[in-house]
Amino acid sequence: MNAPPARVIVLGGGFGGVYTALALEQLAAKGAQVEVTLVNRENYFVFQPMLAEVIAGDVGIIDTLSPLRQLLKTTRLFVRDVQAVDLAARTVTLAPGLTRRPQELEFDHLVVALGTVTDFRGIAGLPEHALPFKTLADAVRIRNHVIGVLEQASEERDGDERRAMLSFVVAGGGFSGTEVAAALNDFVRSAVRDYPSIPQNEVRIVLVHSGGRLLEGELTPGLASYATTALAAQGIELMLNERLSAATPGSAVLGDGWRIPTRTLISTVPSSPNPVVESLGLPLVRGRLDCEATLAVKGSERVWAVGDCALVPMRDGQPSPPTAQHAIRQAKLLARNIVAHESGLKPRRFAFTGLGKLGALGHRRAVAQLPLGLRLAGMPAWLMWRGVYWWKLPGAARKTRVAISWLSDLALPPHPVQLNLGASRATAQAHYEEGEVIFAEGDTGDSLFMIIEGRVEVRKRFGDEQRTVATLGPGEYFGEMALLGRDPRSATARALTPLDVLVLSASDFSALAGSLPEFRRPFEDIARRRTDANREEPAEG
Amino acid sequence: MNAPPARVIVLGGGFGGVYTALALEQLAAKGAQVEVTLVNRENYFVFQPMLAEVIAGDVGIIDTLSPLRQLLKTTRLFVRDVQAVDLAARTVTLAPGLTRRPQELEFDHLVVALGTVTDFRGIAGLPEHALPFKTLADAVRIRNHVIGVLEQASEERDGDERRAMLSFVVAGGGFSGTEVAAALNDFVRSAVRDYPSIPQNEVRIVLVHSGGRLLEGELTPGLASYATTALAAQGIELMLNERLSAATPGSAVLGDGWRIPTRTLISTVPSSPNPVVESLGLPLVRGRLDCEATLAVKGSERVWAVGDCALVPMRDGQPSPPTAQHAIRQAKLLARNIVAHESGLKPRRFAFTGLGKLGALGHRRAVAQLPLGLRLAGMPAWLMWRGVYWWKLPGAARKTRVAISWLSDLALPPHPVQLNLGASRATAQAHYEEGEVIFAEGDTGDSLFMIIEGRVEVRKRFGDEQRTVATLGPGEYFGEMALLGRDPRSATARALTPLDVLVLSASDFSALAGSLPEFRRPFEDIARRRTDANREEPAEG
Repeated sequence: MNAPPARVIVLGGGFGGVYTALALEQLAAKGAQVEVTLVNRENYFVFQPMLAEVIAGDVGIIDTLSPLRQLLKTTRLFVRDVQAVDLAARTVTLAPGLTRRPQELEFDHLVVALGTVTDFRGIAGLPEHALPFKTLADAVRIRNHVIGVLEQASEERDGDERRAMLSFVVAGGGFSGTEVAAALNDFVRSAVRDYPSIPQNEVRIVLVHSGGRLLEGELTPGLASYATTALAAQGIELMLNERLSAATPGSAVLGDGWRIPTRTLISTVPSSPNPVVESLGLPLVRGRLDCEATLAVKGSERVWAVGDCALVPMRDGQPSPPTAQHAIRQAKLLARNIVAHESGLKPRRFAFTGLGKLGALGHRRAVAQLPLGLRLAGMPAWLMWRGVYWWKLPGAARKTRVAISWLSDLALPPHPVQLNLGASRATAQAHYEEGEVIFAEGDTGDSLFMIIEGRVEVRKRFGDEQRTVATLGPGEYFGEMALLGRDPRSATARALTPLDVLVLSASDFSALAGSLPEFRRPFEDIARRRTDANREEPAEG
Repeated sequence: MNAPPARVIVLGGGFGGVYTALALEQLAAKGAQVEVTLVNRENYFVFQPMLAEVIAGDVGIIDTLSPLRQLLKTTRLFVRDVQAVDLAARTVTLAPGLTRRPQELEFDHLVVALGTVTDFRGIAGLPEHALPFKTLADAVRIRNHVIGVLEQASEERDGDERRAMLSFVVAGGGFSGTEVAAALNDFVRSAVRDYPSIPQNEVRIVLVHSGGRLLEGELTPGLASYATTALAAQGIELMLNERLSAATPGSAVLGDGWRIPTRTLISTVPSSPNPVVESLGLPLVRGRLDCEATLAVKGSERVWAVGDCALVPMRDGQPSPPTAQHAIRQAKLLARNIVAHESGLKPRRFAFTGLGKLGALGHRRAVAQLPLGLRLAGMPAWLMWRGVYWWKLPGAARKTRVAISWLSDLALPPHPVQLNLGASRATAQAHYEEGEVIFAEGDTGDSLFMIIEGRVEVRKRFGDEQRTVATLGPGEYFGEMALLGRDPRSATARALTPLDVLVLSASDFSALAGSLPEFRRPFEDIARRRTDANREEPAEG
């Protein structure tokens, strides 16, 4: 008789996570005893290398996405955030979704593929005023923001204000900053033709880079120089050997105190480990999980890492760079090593050395650094760049859609439409009918309720018994205890009548409570009184 | 010598507004002395009849949009909200954009084309828990919500909860409710095949309608019966002669108290006049501006209305129905009547009687009621429905894109991806550098600031002189006066040092202040003290 299949949980649905799950599915189809679960915040895989094209509108938003349920046939998918990982107990706890109950999954092997997150802390004003460029949402937001600014600039009569609106600043001259600046330059200079009242010579695209050449360290000096010259020739202002030191609603501030008046600052620079990766308590080196060449995380048992969050040594001892091609090869090896581990076989070591490097430079230009010392620049490199990424797109349907999108863009005018999808508000209201449960004891508490109209009964379990600990009416609040202590709900709240409440999210509660002592105090007072009251209950009972 | 051209301001960029501007542009090209300005919240025109197709994913989001700057060649476009209209002074004040200064435009003729807005007040819980279906953002939000619910349902182990997640309720059995229910039914039943863990027989699409037949009053009894039977045959549950009486986070409540457990309630029913239309002080009949057959608004001078916000009598005395075909014909007549008015000629009267009615029923079925008593139902009507709307799409580029989109959907699998574009938070932070102005005297005040770190100087004009009225530091607030009184900023605030502030929007401020007296009190106290202090200043000076 066979042992039960090994349960593998993969955290993260980028290149590393998705290709690990795919490779495990293929091995399972050939008889390997594994069962795969993937946890990802979205139900789609984003084809990261094409994100800059979303800003420029060269591909549609949807074209960069592949539905995970269509890519992965037998993998169990949870579209959730990860709340906690317990390596000792071998469990992953998922954050609550529509229902407020946390969910726990058990694993035999854990694959960490969570990439990195944008981290703007450390530079004043950056978290508040810079636009990150990392996710699909970021790319769509940048595009919308840029169009919005053009609309405003077209009717701005104050010259200084208008020039600030027409200045677009990108910080960081690595692959991603260079591609964004180039895409933005192409897009803005073409879109602005629809705005006759905008003086076209007032448009500035500024790229701020700490090095003396763009893509320095990523490409050979010759190609880096080519890229630097190509961007400058397209009219992009390069501010080299400069660093961003602060950001405000109206300017980007450089290290020497120089201020560039702008309404658009895109930063591609700081990234840091996903908080879940940090919470594992495993050794991090330069923010990445320290791995063996087998992709096993050092100092752990049956925990593996892949992609940008993993520091994997290559044959020459250098760390594997954070690119899609490396993540894909790591993923395939990782899947084989998990199956080998289950069969008691020796794991293999990562031996891929890279196929080359590609970067788009706008205006249908690119640079490519290939094996055997081959180099390519300009339009041929750009055709290769599109070809390689098109080939890598998962699935024939996706390939067809992108091809259609590229072909129609050659023939049809661009779409400078600012997708207005509305903003959500933090202070929402909610209505409940008599008898409905607002939250139940043990649920995750992520909001505070203030009664506008109606009555609420708060009940708590004492041993086997449920007892009413409070009946509340208009002007009273409930749910504050979970927010103050970050614990699960300590009681159940149920509407006694039709009920209207104001709902304040935990994050907005802490922002307000942090800076307004008057705001925090009444909640603390009432929480203290209620805790005391509940403690006395059992003595009475 | 010619008189200066007549300045026409068109408010609203739906069918009525856009076609009025287009017709005026054409007349101007032929020599008419008019100058057109269009004010619209978005920089695109939404092709409303295709919105239900966005839910089902039959057309891409972008395909329903046409950039206004490409449609309109000589019209001046303001992408802004309207803050106020002064009919006596003949001015329109635009709401502030990136800069906080309101902007005023003068007109000789005003065209009101603001349509209607969704108004969920009046039914308990509807504003909080029902999804409206009116704008593009609504359609995208419904699609995302539905996919999100399917993701959650696929891993929900509580059977009651899962069945609630898989129940989708649509309220309203007019054209729009019928099309939404049909599109949703097609979409959910096809998408659910990607979720092997969802029991397909638990999916329910429920359509609640107050009449005894769908589309009653809009179509002949025969076609209404056909539509009713067609939807029922597709597995849509019809709850006829029923009305929604309340909505909660977990249920739709009907008039007789019956509750349908659901996480998705879409309401197509209540709509009311745009608040700007209400603020004009002109006579409204059933929420629409009372117009002559010439499209002039009764009791006004050089104020015209068109489309859904206008009550225009047809030849038979009946009001013109709120459809695209009527709005387009009204717009053309309206443009001619404005030019006629300027030349001292007599205006013409609206004489269009309608070309027929079309409604999609899902499963590639539709109903059509045509002139001369012609009727069509089923697949031929559906082909006609697509053909007519495709033909009406503005511009050849748009027609091509939609045709490509339809053709590729025949061949390619659908995309059940839940576009995660992130939520914005209400309590944002902002960072300013020394010397920057946070707001200036006279700006529109739409937020409150609380100082986390740094110092702020508040200066006020007294006659010709600027004087510092306060210097504030951590823990202090400013900007509350404009929020309490809804006046323009009464002073200028400038950062004296690098400054970090917490920013609370006006709408969130009023929600919190309305239900939390403790929250409102300190702001009122400080506003009173500051007002008193400022009043004393001039005496001292």
